[in-house]
Amino acid sequence: MNNFQFYSPTEFVFGRDTECEAGNYVKKHGGSKVLLHYGGGSAVRSGLLGRIKASLTEAGIGFTELGGVRPNPRDTLVYDGIRLARSEGVDFILAVGGGSTIDSSKAIAMGVPYDGDFWDFYCGKAAPSAALPVGTVLTIAAAGSEGSGDSVITKESDGLKRGAGSDLIRPRFSVMNPALTCTLPPYQTACGATDIMAHVFERYFTNTTEVGITDRLCEAVLKTMIAETPRVIAQPDNYDARANIMWAGTVAHTNIVGVGREQDWNSHGIEHELSALYDCAHGAGLAVIMPAWMEFVCGHDVMRFAQAAVRVWGCEMNFANPEATAREGIFRFRQFLHGIGMPVNFAELGADEADIPKLVEKFGIGRRRTGGFVKLSADDVAEIYRIAAHAAL
Amino acid sequence: MNNFQFYSPTEFVFGRDTECEAGNYVKKHGGSKVLLHYGGGSAVRSGLLGRIKASLTEAGIGFTELGGVRPNPRDTLVYDGIRLARSEGVDFILAVGGGSTIDSSKAIAMGVPYDGDFWDFYCGKAAPSAALPVGTVLTIAAAGSEGSGDSVITKESDGLKRGAGSDLIRPRFSVMNPALTCTLPPYQTACGATDIMAHVFERYFTNTTEVGITDRLCEAVLKTMIAETPRVIAQPDNYDARANIMWAGTVAHTNIVGVGREQDWNSHGIEHELSALYDCAHGAGLAVIMPAWMEFVCGHDVMRFAQAAVRVWGCEMNFANPEATAREGIFRFRQFLHGIGMPVNFAELGADEADIPKLVEKFGIGRRRTGGFVKLSADDVAEIYRIAAHAAL
Repeated sequence: MNNFQFYSPTEFVFGRDTECEAGNYVKKHGGSKVLLHYGGGSAVRSGLLGRIKASLTEAGIGFTELGGVRPNPRDTLVYDGIRLARSEGVDFILAVGGGSTIDSSKAIAMGVPYDGDFWDFYCGKAAPSAALPVGTVLTIAAAGSEGSGDSVITKESDGLKRGAGSDLIRPRFSVMNPALTCTLPPYQTACGATDIMAHVFERYFTNTTEVGITDRLCEAVLKTMIAETPRVIAQPDNYDARANIMWAGTVAHTNIVGVGREQDWNSHGIEHELSALYDCAHGAGLAVIMPAWMEFVCGHDVMRFAQAAVRVWGCEMNFANPEATAREGIFRFRQFLHGIGMPVNFAELGADEADIPKLVEKFGIGRRRTGGFVKLSADDVAEIYRIAAHAAL
Repeated sequence: MNNFQFYSPTEFVFGRDTECEAGNYVKKHGGSKVLLHYGGGSAVRSGLLGRIKASLTEAGIGFTELGGVRPNPRDTLVYDGIRLARSEGVDFILAVGGGSTIDSSKAIAMGVPYDGDFWDFYCGKAAPSAALPVGTVLTIAAAGSEGSGDSVITKESDGLKRGAGSDLIRPRFSVMNPALTCTLPPYQTACGATDIMAHVFERYFTNTTEVGITDRLCEAVLKTMIAETPRVIAQPDNYDARANIMWAGTVAHTNIVGVGREQDWNSHGIEHELSALYDCAHGAGLAVIMPAWMEFVCGHDVMRFAQAAVRVWGCEMNFANPEATAREGIFRFRQFLHGIGMPVNFAELGADEADIPKLVEKFGIGRRRTGGFVKLSADDVAEIYRIAAHAAL
């Protein structure tokens, strides 16, 4: 096990009706004037935004609003948010939505006290030294952004999708009412579940030895997702299944299941180019990319893939042919994703094999190699896209 | 799943040589004058205390010392600590040791800014409204106090052992170097492992339904302990096994594996009377009490015990007789504890069956019933002590 630092100071407030406490938690964490940041009209139509505004008013918290966050959140809206927050003297950002809204809020939070362009934090030119506090009211179980110090933003002008990370943008609190996710369409629910599972697999495949505790914790989250996801696809308003998935999504991404081990985030990176180019859902892109990545790297550590097959997917170990077990686990993953309505190849995703050179170029590693588990070259990445393009059950 | 709040703001600094960073972390978390609180001479002899003092001095932090914490930490030393901290103008308590030292530090931290008797927080007379910040350098994987808001103190005059809890006493940081635990004798190592497993089982046995994610997380910690504990008993200086156990111990008790479910802490309470009366190790007492409690309550939910037997202990499910599987799981637990050198009955612990009436009286529930999974009467508690007294493999 490697040395590590783990810090997850977010206060999680979980359960039915908890959104009505949002105002009290803003107050508890020092906010007095809030930028209420959200996406489309569903938060308005459902009455959620109204309940949160009532809760803010009751707690004596002033607020100004900025809606319009889209999936794959754009830098353009972040600039709007920074201007608005400054002109209104906002001292707290409250995100109401899923990962896109929370990530956009985090970008605004870093941008407000920064003299330069907030994109500096995303292109690696600068690290933030201050940020406004962020709180969240989560409406989608997926990104884990409600408990993480990460944010991913897409540049409108050239479609570059890049991430930034800092403990400064870990939410001070996250209000999580699983009932708010019951109205999500099955496709978005499945995209979220895929993202959660990917967050765990990106940590699971590692070259670090002697990580029994985090292996087991990863497997616990994955087995929960395998059991609960088909339930919410079949019964969208199953509160308990939604609750298990929601907490699994947070546990998956605070990094408590990934400490002390080298991780590999290539699947996320390779996917980002798909959702940046086609504006498809991140989870759907992961459903196509991650099994392809697994097939490509499986030979690097067959026994680790066999472990996943046996412990996560319940395959029987083929002691005469461990690779058969390893590959059966990958097959089961793809079969599971198909079963919850996710695409398995480029055609089903709406991607075009002819774009692979463009995708690889945007991935932007040139002659370098990237990755924690297996270091990939640009050619390797192209091959993973090709496997993904042609995948079938 | 029940509504819950989860808050674990401790910064964990984990790995080799991390104790040399203690001074920097005190500084980062606002301390300028530290009460360095520890137990016996081993921290001095091993050079650990010297390294920590050097680290404090290097960071420009002043300190005063109070050693002498014993297992089952006493109120008398807490009073000494409060007086010393006040007279020396201490603004941070740094615990160097295991659960006893950390719990004693937490009691001092609450006592310093309080006008009344700190025992008020332990006997339920008052709740703390302020506390000095606490940091820890952990030397034993067991109590989980390095990541919890709990503290247990024993009153010297009458042997009462009572707990207090508050987010105010959650450590600001915990430095965790598994190498520091390599010198622990096997008996203490096994006591710590038993305590960790008990912390999980107290959460696992619940009447709350639909808690798949926390069930799986509990099982992950337990399976890790079952795999790693025999390794460190056989090879005390196995750093990696120590590391897995150390992180498992923290995960077991921040409550991340126990949120949203009713818990049952009767085994801990019933044990506390043993360690208060005989001054035995808490873990050793748990090894005797917890399987006895399991045998007594097993009939309340046979399928939950069967689930533990199958998923945690690897028993094969007896579909014709689930209770046989359930009881096989309990048998395996006791067998495991015996295998790591723990006592299985009163005689091996050094307890006397004739004291049962006294133990029950001290447990102090009178005609009430207590417990989350099964509500126990005083007679039930006496019966559990009797089962524990006579247990055998």
